[in-house]
Amino acid sequence: MNTVDNTRTIEVCFTPALFPHRLTKENYAVVIVDILRATTAICTAFGNGALEVIPVAEIEDTKKYRELGYKVAGERDGIVIEGADFGNSPFNFTKQNVNGEKIVITTTNGTQTIDVTKVCDTVVLGAFSNITALSDWLDSQVKNVVILCAGWKNKFNIEDSIFAGALIERLMHKPNYKIICDSAIAAVDLWNLAKGDVLDYIERASHRHRLKKLGLDDVLDYCFTEDTNPVIPLLYGGRLVNTLKKK
Amino acid sequence: MNTVDNTRTIEVCFTPALFPHRLTKENYAVVIVDILRATTAICTAFGNGALEVIPVAEIEDTKKYRELGYKVAGERDGIVIEGADFGNSPFNFTKQNVNGEKIVITTTNGTQTIDVTKVCDTVVLGAFSNITALSDWLDSQVKNVVILCAGWKNKFNIEDSIFAGALIERLMHKPNYKIICDSAIAAVDLWNLAKGDVLDYIERASHRHRLKKLGLDDVLDYCFTEDTNPVIPLLYGGRLVNTLKKK
Repeated sequence: MNTVDNTRTIEVCFTPALFPHRLTKENYAVVIVDILRATTAICTAFGNGALEVIPVAEIEDTKKYRELGYKVAGERDGIVIEGADFGNSPFNFTKQNVNGEKIVITTTNGTQTIDVTKVCDTVVLGAFSNITALSDWLDSQVKNVVILCAGWKNKFNIEDSIFAGALIERLMHKPNYKIICDSAIAAVDLWNLAKGDVLDYIERASHRHRLKKLGLDDVLDYCFTEDTNPVIPLLYGGRLVNTLKKK
Repeated sequence: MNTVDNTRTIEVCFTPALFPHRLTKENYAVVIVDILRATTAICTAFGNGALEVIPVAEIEDTKKYRELGYKVAGERDGIVIEGADFGNSPFNFTKQNVNGEKIVITTTNGTQTIDVTKVCDTVVLGAFSNITALSDWLDSQVKNVVILCAGWKNKFNIEDSIFAGALIERLMHKPNYKIICDSAIAAVDLWNLAKGDVLDYIERASHRHRLKKLGLDDVLDYCFTEDTNPVIPLLYGGRLVNTLKKK
């Protein structure tokens, strides 16, 4: 960040493999995005009163947390894993299931993304569920912003990219923000194509069809609805906590 | 490729760092794209009668070829390197400079991209300069297509991505092609936004501004003009040769 003119830069990495190649190296907040479904689900968990969420990459890693009284959320390729209390659909993270609970979650894609940000001071999760709260919170931090899309197995995906565009649109309505890369320009352009009818636009995306094949596309409408959970899931030493309590 | 229904897949990698994560693993042709300016310049070289072009990553590597009678094209950050016959602008690859010559070229970005395709059987260069010839040639090969954008220092860039969209549009007008990834969907969407006035669209891209700062943006119009050089620069053992001679 230029400390003289107070400009805050905005950059997008379309997949975790591109994160090491980012331009932004100082004073930044990373926004991790995995719209279908990890970051949407975790926002829902905090919205319904979860105390903390620990994302882990491997199924094996959930076991020690289970012994410590954590509830386990986990699936692989859409199937709930053995020993889990529930799967990763946002609809599983009900008040009944998560209020006052500590959760450990393992996902195919999202937790691996969190892993590449271990070197970063400020890491927060973003979803349409928390987009307004998130853009206001980011603005309060006076930091550069790096939006890190989980993508799908290190491939670009549409749903995370249009969320990046939607978040950038919010930030650009505030003073002092500046886009510094073509990924961010493209994300905004794709969001502008999508926003009139997001579900129609997403219909063409490949992951949406993966979910459909698995019978998991009931969450689509919810995952693209804004501001259902005004929470800020912030990563501290491998744990996510909500820094913004529901009013 | 599915040998029963003859479907050919189309996939896009937005930067070299994403190439190892591609879905397409069998029977494919890679199209390397570096519109500003390496692939456009090399198409121009072949259009003006160059016999072969050897892309190398390091300036040091050009020296042995110079001793073998090759002409040397090279620059770093827009400045012609010491000992080179000319820089990397397509406008340097005139008939007078390259007809009947063997050329060694080193660029900031493009040659490093060629490097990641060493494992691949069929590697060809693409630019607006050869887009029609290229789409016809690809179709004649009966292979899956992976479009590999050079990007900029492993960041996504607009100009290579819209070319990917333009090439996909051409291929999708032929029978049997199928898009298999969201990158390709996004590339087509961005191309559709750009194609009405490509120079206006590109005006927003970051690399276009880098070129402007270096006083090198005189090539923009040329780099986005279709079919100026109907050539097929094909990579064989580290050398590019033109498999399609001008009629």
